[in-house]
Amino acid sequence: MGGDLAPEVPVEGAIEALETLPRGVEILLVGDPDAIRQHLGGFDDLRVSILPASQVIEMGEPPVPAVRKKQDSSVVVGLKAHAEGRAQAFITGGSTGAAMAGSLLILKPLKGVDRPAIGAVLPAKVPVLMLDGGANVDCKPHHLLQFAHLGHIYARDVMGRPNPRVGLLNVGEEPGKGNELAVEAYELLRASRLNFIGNVEGRDIIRDVCDVVVTDGFVGNVVLKFYEQAADFILNVLRPVLDPSHPQFEQLARFLDYTTYGGAPLLGVNGVVIITHGDTPPRAVANAIRVAVQAVENRMVEHLRQELESMAGKEARAT
Amino acid sequence: MGGDLAPEVPVEGAIEALETLPRGVEILLVGDPDAIRQHLGGFDDLRVSILPASQVIEMGEPPVPAVRKKQDSSVVVGLKAHAEGRAQAFITGGSTGAAMAGSLLILKPLKGVDRPAIGAVLPAKVPVLMLDGGANVDCKPHHLLQFAHLGHIYARDVMGRPNPRVGLLNVGEEPGKGNELAVEAYELLRASRLNFIGNVEGRDIIRDVCDVVVTDGFVGNVVLKFYEQAADFILNVLRPVLDPSHPQFEQLARFLDYTTYGGAPLLGVNGVVIITHGDTPPRAVANAIRVAVQAVENRMVEHLRQELESMAGKEARAT
Repeated sequence: MGGDLAPEVPVEGAIEALETLPRGVEILLVGDPDAIRQHLGGFDDLRVSILPASQVIEMGEPPVPAVRKKQDSSVVVGLKAHAEGRAQAFITGGSTGAAMAGSLLILKPLKGVDRPAIGAVLPAKVPVLMLDGGANVDCKPHHLLQFAHLGHIYARDVMGRPNPRVGLLNVGEEPGKGNELAVEAYELLRASRLNFIGNVEGRDIIRDVCDVVVTDGFVGNVVLKFYEQAADFILNVLRPVLDPSHPQFEQLARFLDYTTYGGAPLLGVNGVVIITHGDTPPRAVANAIRVAVQAVENRMVEHLRQELESMAGKEARAT
Repeated sequence: MGGDLAPEVPVEGAIEALETLPRGVEILLVGDPDAIRQHLGGFDDLRVSILPASQVIEMGEPPVPAVRKKQDSSVVVGLKAHAEGRAQAFITGGSTGAAMAGSLLILKPLKGVDRPAIGAVLPAKVPVLMLDGGANVDCKPHHLLQFAHLGHIYARDVMGRPNPRVGLLNVGEEPGKGNELAVEAYELLRASRLNFIGNVEGRDIIRDVCDVVVTDGFVGNVVLKFYEQAADFILNVLRPVLDPSHPQFEQLARFLDYTTYGGAPLLGVNGVVIITHGDTPPRAVANAIRVAVQAVENRMVEHLRQELESMAGKEARAT
């Protein structure tokens, strides 16, 4: 209910997703039953039901107090359903801060995770996972190591990369390059058992040299938002020499569109949480649902837990 | 001589620049006279002469020792000619590190500058200056304030923006957003007499909301290199629906090409130093020369000195 186009777009996205989802998947629409029913229109399918929630956390509200106070908000009700096992995943287009705060308070972080990270899948010939996408703007080297482990599992379980290549975003390729954070994170990543390929530069992010790009949430957020705008700008610059009647035009323009990628996972909490843009079209919501289903089917959270345990075990042995 | 395509491309760029430069401008080509003469071919113009330099600093060499040891390298000879007033500006496509180290050792930093910054002009509907482009990866808030003052003068004197709007790159628009560096830099910028418009996000960089984007050299370098690659990638994605025979095609593709922008100024040293890519075409070298001429004609260095003095005066009064 908290998104700019809610509940209309989430409802339409759910309907769109059902067309391609496996039969066993059911969708709970969390929010104001009347408003949801209105947008469902004549649609009637046993796989869709409504979970009532009377409150809405607005975009600008301070997240932690809002989550504590609005116990009947759609984000709190939905996350509780997930925590209690009535739902196996939670998808939201509302306030990112509320999704984050709610996930930490209700689902709890996984053992060994100081700070959950937002994973962002960037359009590329081979799409790449970058994290953190903006949840943690001040990071220590061991946070970046955690992000790398979280990204490793997500890339493997959800993006289908058998042995994900992990790169550290930096200003040069050679070891020893970069700011203090990157120099120290490099050493931690090198000593890990991840498939660490070393430093990657800005020009390497979308060049298929790695599956997971690790960076702090400040840099990640800037790159993410810049990419969106740059794609839009370049498309506009080239518009006079584009042929919109070409049969491939729609498909290619869509390839550059973030919404195709259907939301960013919040990684490191005890559950499957997918965050979509608030002003995204139904197609993106449908994709977010498919991504969530894949995370559940591939037991991502269980694998994240194992990964973090074995990481902690390794560190304990090293000290 | 240190660039990948030297001396061929610098020589061709100089010839190209002469076609449009004011009559009074002369160009000194610094390097191996035989090699330079070979690329000059039959070209003969009183405005071009050769300043011999027998050594070359290679791309991978550690800059400071190389500058100290190779006193007859093209970068040292060229910077000395500038320091001694035999040249009013210096342009290089060689090692950025050597240009930086040489500028600090030979030209010296301007009073009040802890660290010179690389200014990068990004392609946009209204091109924008971002600094630091990669010279300083670990920054303190007062460095970002200095970058803002340097950018203010460059945008005004060379890019023709009468009262440059300065933005601080951040993860959100509201004051108080961001990492520690950004939060503190915001306060310094707000208290300055610059035309500070506040925080700008990744999506605002190329959206003509400001003329100067201030950030540390880590973020700046990542954005810069990412943009280059993103433009290339998007152009390739759209290739099937592009019409290369369209009369505007070349012009638009060139607009997205960094080389059109002709080099990044090294700001904060006692001189005009323009750094170009090592593998840039002659057109970019010609543009770098035009940019340098404009910086000299508009007395950029004198204005930088005044700006830094008045900034120091303001700080002294404030304490």
